[in-house]
Amino acid sequence: MITGELLIGGSTRRGSDGEIWGIEAASGRRLEPSFGGAALEDLEQACLIADQAFDTFRRTSPEERAMLLEKIGSNILDLGDELIDRCVAETGLPRIRIEGERSRTVGQLQLFASVVREGAFLDVRIDKAMPSRKPQPRADLRLTNIGVGPVGVFGASNFPLAFSVAGGDTASALAAGCPVIVKAHSAHPGTSELVGRAVQSAVRACELPEGTFSLIFDSKRAVSQALVANPRIKAIGFTGSRGAGVAFMQIAARRPEPIPVYAEMSSINPVILFPSALAARGAEIGSQLVAALTLGAGQFCTNPGLILAVNSEGYDSFVTAAREAISATTAATMLTPAIHKAYRSGVDQLVSHQSVTTVARGRAGGENQAQAGIFETTAGAFLSHRELQDEVFGAATLIVRCDDAKELREVVEHLEGQLTIALHIDQGDYMFARELTPLLERKAGRLIVNGFGTGVEVSHAMVHGGPFPATSDVRTTSVGSLAIERFLRPVCYQAFPPELLPCAVSDANAWGVPQRTDPGT
Amino acid sequence: MITGELLIGGSTRRGSDGEIWGIEAASGRRLEPSFGGAALEDLEQACLIADQAFDTFRRTSPEERAMLLEKIGSNILDLGDELIDRCVAETGLPRIRIEGERSRTVGQLQLFASVVREGAFLDVRIDKAMPSRKPQPRADLRLTNIGVGPVGVFGASNFPLAFSVAGGDTASALAAGCPVIVKAHSAHPGTSELVGRAVQSAVRACELPEGTFSLIFDSKRAVSQALVANPRIKAIGFTGSRGAGVAFMQIAARRPEPIPVYAEMSSINPVILFPSALAARGAEIGSQLVAALTLGAGQFCTNPGLILAVNSEGYDSFVTAAREAISATTAATMLTPAIHKAYRSGVDQLVSHQSVTTVARGRAGGENQAQAGIFETTAGAFLSHRELQDEVFGAATLIVRCDDAKELREVVEHLEGQLTIALHIDQGDYMFARELTPLLERKAGRLIVNGFGTGVEVSHAMVHGGPFPATSDVRTTSVGSLAIERFLRPVCYQAFPPELLPCAVSDANAWGVPQRTDPGT
Repeated sequence: MITGELLIGGSTRRGSDGEIWGIEAASGRRLEPSFGGAALEDLEQACLIADQAFDTFRRTSPEERAMLLEKIGSNILDLGDELIDRCVAETGLPRIRIEGERSRTVGQLQLFASVVREGAFLDVRIDKAMPSRKPQPRADLRLTNIGVGPVGVFGASNFPLAFSVAGGDTASALAAGCPVIVKAHSAHPGTSELVGRAVQSAVRACELPEGTFSLIFDSKRAVSQALVANPRIKAIGFTGSRGAGVAFMQIAARRPEPIPVYAEMSSINPVILFPSALAARGAEIGSQLVAALTLGAGQFCTNPGLILAVNSEGYDSFVTAAREAISATTAATMLTPAIHKAYRSGVDQLVSHQSVTTVARGRAGGENQAQAGIFETTAGAFLSHRELQDEVFGAATLIVRCDDAKELREVVEHLEGQLTIALHIDQGDYMFARELTPLLERKAGRLIVNGFGTGVEVSHAMVHGGPFPATSDVRTTSVGSLAIERFLRPVCYQAFPPELLPCAVSDANAWGVPQRTDPGT
Repeated sequence: MITGELLIGGSTRRGSDGEIWGIEAASGRRLEPSFGGAALEDLEQACLIADQAFDTFRRTSPEERAMLLEKIGSNILDLGDELIDRCVAETGLPRIRIEGERSRTVGQLQLFASVVREGAFLDVRIDKAMPSRKPQPRADLRLTNIGVGPVGVFGASNFPLAFSVAGGDTASALAAGCPVIVKAHSAHPGTSELVGRAVQSAVRACELPEGTFSLIFDSKRAVSQALVANPRIKAIGFTGSRGAGVAFMQIAARRPEPIPVYAEMSSINPVILFPSALAARGAEIGSQLVAALTLGAGQFCTNPGLILAVNSEGYDSFVTAAREAISATTAATMLTPAIHKAYRSGVDQLVSHQSVTTVARGRAGGENQAQAGIFETTAGAFLSHRELQDEVFGAATLIVRCDDAKELREVVEHLEGQLTIALHIDQGDYMFARELTPLLERKAGRLIVNGFGTGVEVSHAMVHGGPFPATSDVRTTSVGSLAIERFLRPVCYQAFPPELLPCAVSDANAWGVPQRTDPGT
């Protein structure tokens, strides 16, 4: 049952600072009940108990922590249709997508449970003492990772389950041993409360300290900013707009004790069509592009928003096929009126831009529905109009027509950091692709051959990250098992007696974690 | 031969922006020749060729990169007494210490060579394709770490070899595949040029791009700030004062593309004397403390600057022994007149502080020589005077006398982040130590039993890092093999044909690096 209350540790209370309503995306109607916005005291209380929970929670065994993650997953599944129905209503996304996203979210929790049980994330290193080494003896040194401290997580609008209350940031932070305070996205407050209660009850069932998890709603920016600024918070996970991400980065950098902000922000995910591939199957790529572009109303951070191609054989067939395919697409409901408004404004800017031609638009729709669009410009115009790199969140893409390979390379050099870059290539393109790859590696966290960035696998080798402004921290990923490293820090124990050593670094190794041992002499 | 020139890639040139002189620490006399300060164009040129070198350098094989690191080490050894003599003159440190530091520096380069050869730092992960998985197939995904890009390194005053031109930051950045631009510390320009030429000639001998390494001197802050701000620089390594470190952090955070700054700054390295240990061997600890405190004129970032103890049995013997030992110490030459001046000013503030008593001072000395000092205050005064936590760089320490264990814990809670915390304990203290450890883990990167933080081992399990203001990034260490992770970022290759895969992630695995493979189905 949805009550509209904040979840502060094990307790619930009605927030007193304003009201937020879930909105049925398809109709624009308010959904019952209203949610009370957190006051600063509510946030302070959540941070206080998170800090109090930290030492106990971070010292749980891998098995205990894995069981928490699995219990969260099974509690989410137990919510059944109540969760799916509410989530479909709040987001306007199709039921099958939400069901898929639920599987992904539960799978993600299970992946982190397996990562925790495996124990390699602790990076345990033992350098044994060398008491007779000359000129200086070596003391016994043992290193293990521990959690950085309580983490603030901001749910994303476009993944109401997988990047939200119990999504990748929360799962990886809990896996690392960090208590989590989630600020729910106002686009899906009911979904957030349901999942939040699933987490809260898992914390209780696992007999963990209540401060391990809290969920707040806010009606104003002040509470979100205070979460980033709170001295008890030691890292932030965020997925959202460039503006909000950069604002949080700046707040974090100006704190008396600066903290890392992991913000996944803005990416237009260039797709490069190489000459041989274009000549061999331009039309095919054109229709594949439209399928990728319009999936989920284009509301993915990996949506293909930029197409680079040399105006050579196959180019016209590509454009023609893309034009035909996009013209046949129906309008799709967007997540929120605000996102729809931002999409329209971005598209309007392309439509009215002096150097941009409209290739084609999808069919028009009703309230809150987005009309897809394909636009075209030249490399020269792209290079001289910085604003053409701005992300338009939704099913719009810009084709940049290049005169030759040199000009295409120049456009790539000019690009900001990206989450993904896709290469459409055939064997005849391998030499050019090999030549371009070092540059592409500098520009993006993931390179894809003959596909698109959408469909982010949750696995060990995934990188969902990239240079600024794609993310705030190029050293990290927010999807996949490597995401846990964002919330860890190493601690070294020198010359500790066995009785005082943490379990992970002890010779007894009751947890059975991997230990890299330098035997000394 | 020392010329006073900048080393910009493979070439040398006289800097035109002002002059810097090496100073003989013992006499205050200028050492020949003078060094020309870099102009902004020199810096720009160094950054440009570093960027040009990056793609070639980062794609060298582990063996090629390891050979560069080893060659740098052997070139440094080949400098023989010229290096040692100059370094002793510039720093005032004893010959045996400088020889030891040279061994450590060469050992550090060899350690990173072994890390590179081993290849685990690449963190290669291969998730094989699952073409028949339902509902969605999985694409082949392969992850490897690559270097972040050109790195700016600021040499430290107090380790003219191990934390300077070819020190830990440079070694770990080169190991990660990042070109390096070093800004030499003005406390040892001659030492810097000699070592810089050793690196330059190793780059040449290994036939690597000249931009892999440059060395600049500066006579003004503007060049250092421009290095941090340069868009081609992707990370900064720094060891020095809190003021300079925080200034660099702020410049980096305000860049159009923010970058990580790894600044090792300020730590007073608390030493906690537990009751049983104090009762059993208070006097012994007192004299051990003075030995650790006065080593190298106290000019270590891990110098024990704060002693916490309950005023119980053995406390007086501890203070008495420390008083006697410190009174017998002779004054020691400090690294530079500026460091000496800062030390005197810090000590003067303690001497004249209303809540601080001078326990004893070492013997007075001549020009540029520091007189050690032990001071005492109460827990109550320490808690109410924030300035008593300020680092005094040199052989001065403050004893905080606590009434009971509760008050001692309060003082620990009040501490800023530290590089190290040392615990002096006997078996009778284990319960209290166990109780306090979680708090200590939050406060420092390394915890030491019955020793002091000085003497930082260069090994796999070392952490030379800690919460702000000890460092700017609690997730990292600047000493030990884990330091390489600061300069790496993950890249994922999705559905790449074998012909286009980088060597590290290919099935052929010609480099023989560890690959974590998920076989798929």
